[in-house]
Amino acid sequence: MLELRTSKRTEIIDITDKVQEEVRKTGVRDGLAIIYTRHTTTAITINEGERGLMEDIEDVMCRLVPRGAGYKHDIMDDNADSHIRAILLGNSVVVPVSNGRLDLGTWQRVLFIELDGPRSNRRIVVKVIAT
Amino acid sequence: MLELRTSKRTEIIDITDKVQEEVRKTGVRDGLAIIYTRHTTTAITINEGERGLMEDIEDVMCRLVPRGAGYKHDIMDDNADSHIRAILLGNSVVVPVSNGRLDLGTWQRVLFIELDGPRSNRRIVVKVIAT
Amino acid sequence: MLELRTSKRTEIIDITDKVQEEVRKTGVRDGLAIIYTRHTTTAITINEGERGLMEDIEDVMCRLVPRGAGYKHDIMDDNADSHIRAILLGNSVVVPVSNGRLDLGTWQRVLFIELDGPRSNRRIVVKVIAT
Repeated sequence: MLELRTSKRTEIIDITDKVQEEVRKTGVRDGLAIIYTRHTTTAITINEGERGLMEDIEDVMCRLVPRGAGYKHDIMDDNADSHIRAILLGNSVVVPVSNGRLDLGTWQRVLFIELDGPRSNRRIVVKVIAT
Repeated sequence: MLELRTSKRTEIIDITDKVQEEVRKTGVRDGLAIIYTRHTTTAITINEGERGLMEDIEDVMCRLVPRGAGYKHDIMDDNADSHIRAILLGNSVVVPVSNGRLDLGTWQRVLFIELDGPRSNRRIVVKVIAT
Repeated sequence: MLELRTSKRTEIIDITDKVQEEVRKTGVRDGLAIIYTRHTTTAITINEGERGLMEDIEDVMCRLVPRGAGYKHDIMDDNADSHIRAILLGNSVVVPVSNGRLDLGTWQRVLFIELDGPRSNRRIVVKVIAT
């Protein structure tokens, strides 16, 4: 289990190195890893970790699912946009493991996306299944 | 295999309890579960099961991918919007299993999304792989 | 590992038969398969392989995430739209395997989506885990 602290309402954090360390600790050489967030207003994705691109992703999600656009859920809790963005982005990724490491392409990084921060204790499950 | 009947064109159904029961029946204590829809106009996601939020999700999908917006597929079968919404939402989720149960966060529910109903026989595969 | 050549900037290719052959070669009768692209400007999804629908998917993605819309990443590399579309579509699918084959529904096909082609060498990992 990884634990993260976030510092803004919306924020993308590259967790690749932490996930690789969790995979290494399992001792599994060949199989699959799942990286899974246990929250409904965060997401996990795989893409390039370039700073400008990460800001572009945030901007596009704000445009596609704007905050406070008359959502019914906002009467309960003012974060319907965060939930809906999380659904579109996905709450887990599954990655092949080879030679004891995530078998990522050259530009691929595992990205955690905070959509309703800041929060002090976001929890991400990393689980590895051997072939 | 779960079988569901749906009653509207677009509808979100909380299937968490049925999935937990399928996981329990496998007897697996620790591993991964996949919840997978075998249809091209339905989706599976994980998020909060609050009624207002589920309506918001439907509304946002209708806005992002409106029905009958001149799609080529509509000449064959009048449901291109249903297919494209299904692609954006995803046709399966993978969830860690611990102590014989889906390892969901406090607010997480497994949601089946009908996008071209009503249908009498929607089939969802639940499969569990042990670590 | 599958290798694909693509011929256009945006293109959807039905890879179901190639994936079935990779699954067959593993000899696994029952389990899960992951189909995973190692690139950050391609996606994998499951839906119907009808030609008109595949063009509709491309059109909707162009509308939701237009090319060259002032993205910060475009200063580095003129393809922010490709990355963001890839994130929304997803970079892998996980499919149940039964009787040595992908357990797909009647209309389901595994689709590879090129978003920044043409490219001569796109690589897709197919990995199977037995139950």
